[in-house]
Amino acid sequence: MGNYAELWKRLGVDLKRHDKLCEVLPEIYSSVYLNQEDRPEGMNYFNMVISEIHGLRIEELDKERAKGRKVVGTFCVFVPDEVILALDAISIGLCAGSEFWVQSGETVMPKNMCPLIKAFMGAATDATCPYYLSTDLIVGETTCDGKKKAWEIMKDKKDIYVMDLPQMKREKDILHWKEEILAFIDRMEKLTGNKLTVEKLKAGIKLCNEKRRALKRLNDLRKNKPSPISGLDCLLITQIAFYDDPKRFIENTNKLCDELEERVKSGKIKNNKKRILVTGTPMAVPNWKLHSLIESLDAEVVLEESCTGSRYFENEVSEEGDTIEELAYNIAKRYMKINCACFTPNEGRAEDIVRYSKEYKVDGVIDYCLSFCHTYAVEHRSLKKVLEENNIPILRIETDYSNEDAGQLTTRIEAFLEMI
Amino acid sequence: MGNYAELWKRLGVDLKRHDKLCEVLPEIYSSVYLNQEDRPEGMNYFNMVISEIHGLRIEELDKERAKGRKVVGTFCVFVPDEVILALDAISIGLCAGSEFWVQSGETVMPKNMCPLIKAFMGAATDATCPYYLSTDLIVGETTCDGKKKAWEIMKDKKDIYVMDLPQMKREKDILHWKEEILAFIDRMEKLTGNKLTVEKLKAGIKLCNEKRRALKRLNDLRKNKPSPISGLDCLLITQIAFYDDPKRFIENTNKLCDELEERVKSGKIKNNKKRILVTGTPMAVPNWKLHSLIESLDAEVVLEESCTGSRYFENEVSEEGDTIEELAYNIAKRYMKINCACFTPNEGRAEDIVRYSKEYKVDGVIDYCLSFCHTYAVEHRSLKKVLEENNIPILRIETDYSNEDAGQLTTRIEAFLEMI
Repeated sequence: MGNYAELWKRLGVDLKRHDKLCEVLPEIYSSVYLNQEDRPEGMNYFNMVISEIHGLRIEELDKERAKGRKVVGTFCVFVPDEVILALDAISIGLCAGSEFWVQSGETVMPKNMCPLIKAFMGAATDATCPYYLSTDLIVGETTCDGKKKAWEIMKDKKDIYVMDLPQMKREKDILHWKEEILAFIDRMEKLTGNKLTVEKLKAGIKLCNEKRRALKRLNDLRKNKPSPISGLDCLLITQIAFYDDPKRFIENTNKLCDELEERVKSGKIKNNKKRILVTGTPMAVPNWKLHSLIESLDAEVVLEESCTGSRYFENEVSEEGDTIEELAYNIAKRYMKINCACFTPNEGRAEDIVRYSKEYKVDGVIDYCLSFCHTYAVEHRSLKKVLEENNIPILRIETDYSNEDAGQLTTRIEAFLEMI
Repeated sequence: MGNYAELWKRLGVDLKRHDKLCEVLPEIYSSVYLNQEDRPEGMNYFNMVISEIHGLRIEELDKERAKGRKVVGTFCVFVPDEVILALDAISIGLCAGSEFWVQSGETVMPKNMCPLIKAFMGAATDATCPYYLSTDLIVGETTCDGKKKAWEIMKDKKDIYVMDLPQMKREKDILHWKEEILAFIDRMEKLTGNKLTVEKLKAGIKLCNEKRRALKRLNDLRKNKPSPISGLDCLLITQIAFYDDPKRFIENTNKLCDELEERVKSGKIKNNKKRILVTGTPMAVPNWKLHSLIESLDAEVVLEESCTGSRYFENEVSEEGDTIEELAYNIAKRYMKINCACFTPNEGRAEDIVRYSKEYKVDGVIDYCLSFCHTYAVEHRSLKKVLEENNIPILRIETDYSNEDAGQLTTRIEAFLEMI
């Protein structure tokens, strides 16, 4: 990584603490990622993005801000990027996936809260996340109790706007979400000083759909047996999708897909690995824990049914419509198709997993739950029932970001792989 | 208690298991309640209600159901009793406060979930709650992650209707809640076969307001120093308010208040106890744990800022209006004034506590949080800040229904009392 100390300092980064973070990441990345055999050439772009995670991209954001563009930080796939992009702002997903931040997070949040929330509150508290420090506005939502209340603490330091996500999926709830999107447009117009037009919103929708299509194309390639790419690499790409420049991301993802298609045609990749679908709570960068455990065994992850997976790229927003109101309704409709456990009921999630299990020729499902995430924890019971009715083996894993349980988890996953 | 075995059996109660529950309660009640010195005569009614908790009232419900009336079970102070009463149905609060049910609850819910939710799911699962078994409809809401998802498990056995509570308090959210109330009216009309009229709804509002006034009158009497009634007794009365016949409850509460007014005038009660306001998560019957610990020391609880306290009786619904729509808006407006931690932000709660602390001449506040309740746990931080700014001492207690930590809690409360 280049020398960005000047820039970090200007952003308010605690350089000493940040140095410690910078020491940890390359080591983990190298052992988890660079040791993989036979990786596609196209992963070099993503290697570069990660190696420059707090450098190049931060510099880009800084340059764009100097030109007057605004940076918006988000924590959830429900915040509509379409609106942010249409108003010429930059969207950055801020969910944090490192144990590094958990301790600081626990100074402002209860210990018995999910590590993702503790980590992003820690990153926000201890001034070691240059992305957070580069944002002009944070957009929160009411998806879960922990996040909903975290905004109240974060708002002492940051400008925060919260969107009220309805907790059910009736037509009236879609309309409620449309109203929230229209209110968000107002807020974003004020932030950027730009005026939204139908054309601009259509362009935002188009760009987001294109990104979804690139990710869908990548994930469709995993349906091949064996998959031409590891689960670890795919997870990484999805994680990067949340903060990379969208156009460059689409281009590089499609280039990788070209290569993967060649791989499939060539028939070069041969293995008989067990095919695992991982479902559940999101895995924010650099949370590669479960994937690296699974893929260290004779298994590959062929899909993530999660917010850092299919929930992020499935379903496009319709580009049809002549008014902002109509387009906002299209956006609302698409987002309300996301089968997050924050809804009651959320039967679509189990249906998705059953369908994916066929499409991706899945041998078993691992239901991954971050500790203390109530919604996914409760939902396991009904999910298990549906999967068992469909003869799909399922293993539940509840864990946090620490490595203490790695041995125990490996044993459990090994036993599961032997059984299926 | 009389012999109700026949009735219980008909309701589907697991008699053997239920016997065990019936053995525990009188003993606890006797040691916690009947040992109090100098109790008001008027408490005899409430002693009787508790001693007949699974008897007389269940028999009443049975008789009313035989006449065609419907019984609606609720778990939250957000479900508008006005509507239920207006349609000639009976409302029963079902939140469960006994450790007895936690183990069964853990067979269907995660262990790291609040004991209140585990207990009511346990009571629902193991067929030992004749109230639950007497309901024709359960009304849930989306107040917290745990409850929101519990309905999905409960619905396998029971007819459940869920109301979507918005998570913020803007005017549009009040309107959203009004729409939910109108939808609930539809559902209740279908359940009861009755048609709602403006007059009936006004009568429902009137009755609920009258109950609120009786509870307010009782609680206002606690502003006297010393209070003419113990915190334990007041908590009990509020708990009983959730399931007793409203008219009889109002009558007996007012009768007790007459007696308490006499007590105050007589100046007979003399003590110099520390005056504690308890705030936080609800205490469902028979959860008397914290109050009994506090009042076993030289202190008295003078108010509960909770759903089994001021949030239940504060603010009346306006009876002004000529249409159901107008009255539904009045109801929505009153309920959206409840300062529950499920909202973001929820600044009104701290403001209430500061105001109550003056009105009730409070020496210290205990912030009571059931284990794993995220919303109240996170809110402690901002509450503490506000109270400290106002020089009000605060102690945080996180606990469940078990008695394992009773000794430790007593020590902490003792130290707090010495300090204030």
